[in-house]
Amino acid sequence: MIKRDKIVEELRKILSKDQVIDDEYIIKLYARDAVYLEGNALAIVFPEKTEDVSKIVRFAYRNDIKIYPQGSASEIVGSSIPRDDGIIVNFSRMNRIKEYNIVDMYAVVEPGVRIIELNTVLAKEGYVFPIDPASVKTATIGGAINTGAGGMMGVRYGTMKDAILGLEIVLPDENGTILKLGGKVTKYRVGYDLIRLIIGSEGTLALVTEATLRIVPLPRHIVSVAGFFSKLEDLVRTVIDLKKNRYNLYIAEFVDAQTVEIVTKYISSKIVGSGNLLIVSIDLTDETSVDNMLNSLEEIMRANNALIIYKARSLREAEELGIFDIRRAYYPTTIRMAAESRRDATKRIFVYIEDYSVPPSRLVEYITRLRELASKYNVNVMLGGHIGDGNIHPVIWYEEGDRDAEERIHKFLHDLAILTLELEGTVSSEHGIGIKKKKEFMMELEYKQSTKALELMKKIKQIFDPKNILNPGKIW
Amino acid sequence: MIKRDKIVEELRKILSKDQVIDDEYIIKLYARDAVYLEGNALAIVFPEKTEDVSKIVRFAYRNDIKIYPQGSASEIVGSSIPRDDGIIVNFSRMNRIKEYNIVDMYAVVEPGVRIIELNTVLAKEGYVFPIDPASVKTATIGGAINTGAGGMMGVRYGTMKDAILGLEIVLPDENGTILKLGGKVTKYRVGYDLIRLIIGSEGTLALVTEATLRIVPLPRHIVSVAGFFSKLEDLVRTVIDLKKNRYNLYIAEFVDAQTVEIVTKYISSKIVGSGNLLIVSIDLTDETSVDNMLNSLEEIMRANNALIIYKARSLREAEELGIFDIRRAYYPTTIRMAAESRRDATKRIFVYIEDYSVPPSRLVEYITRLRELASKYNVNVMLGGHIGDGNIHPVIWYEEGDRDAEERIHKFLHDLAILTLELEGTVSSEHGIGIKKKKEFMMELEYKQSTKALELMKKIKQIFDPKNILNPGKIW
Repeated sequence: MIKRDKIVEELRKILSKDQVIDDEYIIKLYARDAVYLEGNALAIVFPEKTEDVSKIVRFAYRNDIKIYPQGSASEIVGSSIPRDDGIIVNFSRMNRIKEYNIVDMYAVVEPGVRIIELNTVLAKEGYVFPIDPASVKTATIGGAINTGAGGMMGVRYGTMKDAILGLEIVLPDENGTILKLGGKVTKYRVGYDLIRLIIGSEGTLALVTEATLRIVPLPRHIVSVAGFFSKLEDLVRTVIDLKKNRYNLYIAEFVDAQTVEIVTKYISSKIVGSGNLLIVSIDLTDETSVDNMLNSLEEIMRANNALIIYKARSLREAEELGIFDIRRAYYPTTIRMAAESRRDATKRIFVYIEDYSVPPSRLVEYITRLRELASKYNVNVMLGGHIGDGNIHPVIWYEEGDRDAEERIHKFLHDLAILTLELEGTVSSEHGIGIKKKKEFMMELEYKQSTKALELMKKIKQIFDPKNILNPGKIW
Repeated sequence: MIKRDKIVEELRKILSKDQVIDDEYIIKLYARDAVYLEGNALAIVFPEKTEDVSKIVRFAYRNDIKIYPQGSASEIVGSSIPRDDGIIVNFSRMNRIKEYNIVDMYAVVEPGVRIIELNTVLAKEGYVFPIDPASVKTATIGGAINTGAGGMMGVRYGTMKDAILGLEIVLPDENGTILKLGGKVTKYRVGYDLIRLIIGSEGTLALVTEATLRIVPLPRHIVSVAGFFSKLEDLVRTVIDLKKNRYNLYIAEFVDAQTVEIVTKYISSKIVGSGNLLIVSIDLTDETSVDNMLNSLEEIMRANNALIIYKARSLREAEELGIFDIRRAYYPTTIRMAAESRRDATKRIFVYIEDYSVPPSRLVEYITRLRELASKYNVNVMLGGHIGDGNIHPVIWYEEGDRDAEERIHKFLHDLAILTLELEGTVSSEHGIGIKKKKEFMMELEYKQSTKALELMKKIKQIFDPKNILNPGKIW
C-alpha cells in the first residue's frame, strides 16, 4: 500500500482539500461507534455527491485501500468500525432530502439524512418514514439501510427491508460503477432482488449514495394504553388475547418487573406502578371509535389482571401522561446507573444492548429462563423490548478491566444464544452482526444446519467486492 | 445426456414408480402455462417430501438434466415453461399445511399448497395470508414465491417479498443441499438476505420445499365504496384526496371507461353505471365508525364529481351489492369476447394480461397516452388494475395466425414500455419476466443505465446453479 501521506495528498487532489481530514485525533473521534468499540483509519473523506464516492472507490480499488462507510456510527455491534488499513467515507455532507411525494408515497434522500430530519419534514404533510430505531435522533438513512434497522413501529411496518423502493449504489469495482436499482413504484419485479441484498449487508457489498423510501400516512388517531402486571404470564396473555381478537397492533412494547423497579427509582416517571409494564397503541381511522377502543383495551387488560391502567386518547396525551417514559428510559437509565455503580471512577463503563427474538408465544418461558441464567451467572440485566414481534433487548454492563464480570457476561450471552435458538428464535433481529455477534451468527447457522448459507454469502461478497476493499472483517 | 428411457427408469428407482410420468400426451398437458405458452419435457416427477427433491436434484446434476419446477403453472409470462432437455418437478403432492400459529402470526406450508386452501383454513381463526393474486384459486405458495406475486391487497401488504419469514430450499448442486433460511420470527437480520433473493427469482436459483409465511388478522370491519367518474382526472384526484387526507387504503382498484362499457354489456353486473370505475375499501377497528367512514368516502367522491356511488358496510354487503363484479370480470370478459370475435372458430385466441406500474400521480397522463397508442396501432385494450399503487393490467388479444394483429400489438407494447419508463414506471410489478418480457426487461435496465445489474444477477445465478440446470432460459 502507498504511504499514508501520499494517500491523503491524492485524495485531496481527487476531491477538494476540505473534504479530507488526516488529523489523527479527529480520526480517533470518528473511528468508534455507540458502544465504545474503537478502531482507527488513515483518513476521513466527506463525499458531497455520488461522483465523489465513485472517484474515492476508483482510487481505493487501484491502490488496495480499504473503505469504511459511515453514517452517524450509532450502531452497536461494531459494523461501522474502521481499521488503519483504510479510510472512513463519512456521508454527513450527503444529507439532502431531494424530493418527496405523498400521493406516490415516496421520498428520495441522500444517505446522510437523519431519520428524524426526514420525519420533521414529512410530519408537516401528515406522513412518516415508519422505521424508527431508538437511535432515530442520530441514525442516518444510509446507516439504517446498512444495518437493516427496525423500531417501535416494527410490529406494523417491519424493518428497513420493507421500506425501500429504490437505491443508487456505487460498486467497489475498478470503475466505481454507479448503479440504480428499483425506482419510485411500490411493486417492482425486474430480475433478482438486489435491493434487499444490499439492505442489511452492513456496508460490505456497495456504498449507498441515494435511497427512495416508502413513506406512509401518520394514523389519523392513535390510542395508547399502559398496564402493570404482577405476572409476566398475564402480560403475555394480554398480547395473545389482542391478537386472537384481531387487533392490528401499531405499537406493543414491554418492560419487565425488575427493570420497572429500577427505572422508576432513577426517573420521575409520570406513570407509576410496579410489575411488568405493557404499552399498546392502536391506530384508528375515526375519532368516534376512540372511547370504544380504549374501553375494549382496558377490559382485556383487566381480564388478565392488570393492576394499574393508564389510557391516552392521542399520542400527545400519551406524552403528557408519560406512557412511554419507562420504556424509553430503560436504556439511558442503565447507562446512568452503571456509571454511578463504578468502583473506580477513572474507568469506563461498557453498556451493551442485545437484540434477540423468539416467537411471541414463547416469551414467558424465554424471559423466565433468561432471568434464571442471569441469576446463575450473577449478571445484572435490564429487560424490555418490542413484545408485538417477540424482539427483546436485554441491556447488560460491566466496568472496564473487570475481567470477572466480563467472563460471567460472556458465559451468560453464550447460554442465552443457545436458549434463543432452542425456542426457535434468532440472535439478531435489527442490530446486525458487525464484529460483536460473529460467534452468535455462526452458532445460529450451525444450529439450523445452514452453514452452506455462509458459503453463498461469501461468494456473493466476492461478486460485489472482488478485492475485499469494502468494510472488511464484518459479519464473518 | 443419457437416453430418455434410461432417465425415466432411473427416476422410478430413485422415487417410486407412480411418482414419475412419461406419457407424452400428459407431459404436453403439463408443459404449458395460463396464457398458452407451450413447452415439452422428458418426464414429470412428483416429489412427496424434501428428500425426494434432493434426490431428483442429485440425479439431474450428475446427468446434466435440466429441472423445471412447477406449481399450478398459472403464471402468464412463461416462467414455468419447460423444454425437452429436462424434467418437470411438479409440487402438487407436497401440499400440506404443516403448522400455523395466530399468536406468532406464521404458517408453515409446503410449496404445493394453494393460497385459497390456506386462506380457507386461516379464515376460521380470523386470519389471512394477505397476498392475493387474481389466480388465487389455483396459484400455489411455491409458484407465488417464485413469481414474486402481488394482488388486490398489495396497497396494504405489498407482495410476496413482504410475506415470507423463512424458506427451506434445495440447491441445484451435486449434493442437492437442503438449506433452511430465516425462521418463525418477523425480524431477522442474520447475514445477507438470501430469502428475498429466492423470492421472485422465477425458480432459477433454488427449489423451494417449504415456506414459513407471515399471516395477518382479517380486519374487524371493511367498508367499500364504488363510484363512476366521467373523467379519469376526477377518479385519480379522488385517490389523491384520500391519500392527502391520510386514509390508509385497504383496496383501491379501478377499471377505465371503455372497459366498463364493454364489461357491462357482457355480464349482468349488479352495480350499474358508465364512466371510469373506482372501488375503495378501508378497514376499521370499530363498528361505530362505519357510517362516518362511508359518509366521508362518499363526500370525497362527490366533491370529485362521481356520478353514481355504491356503499357497502361490510365485505359481505359488498359481495351482495356486486361492488367488485366489474373489476373481477374484465379479464374473463376479455377472454369470452375475444373468443366470440374470432373470425375462424378453429383458431385459438391469445389473451395477454400485461403488468406495468407508474407512480400513481402519473396515471392520468399514462392512461391517456396508453389509449392514444392503442388507437394509433389499432389495438383493442381492456384496462384496469390496482390504482392505489399505480399497477395497471392492460389486457390485449389476437387470433392465432393473425400476423397483422400480432405485429401491431408488438409495436404497441414496445411503445408502451418506453412510455412506462418515461413516466418513471416499471415494466414488471408482480408477474415477472419469464420468457415473454425479456425484451422489456432489457429496455428497463438500459433506460436506467443499470445493465451492470444484469451482470451481477448472472454471477449470482452461477453461484447457486453452477451447471445451469435449474429452469434455464428464463429472465434473460
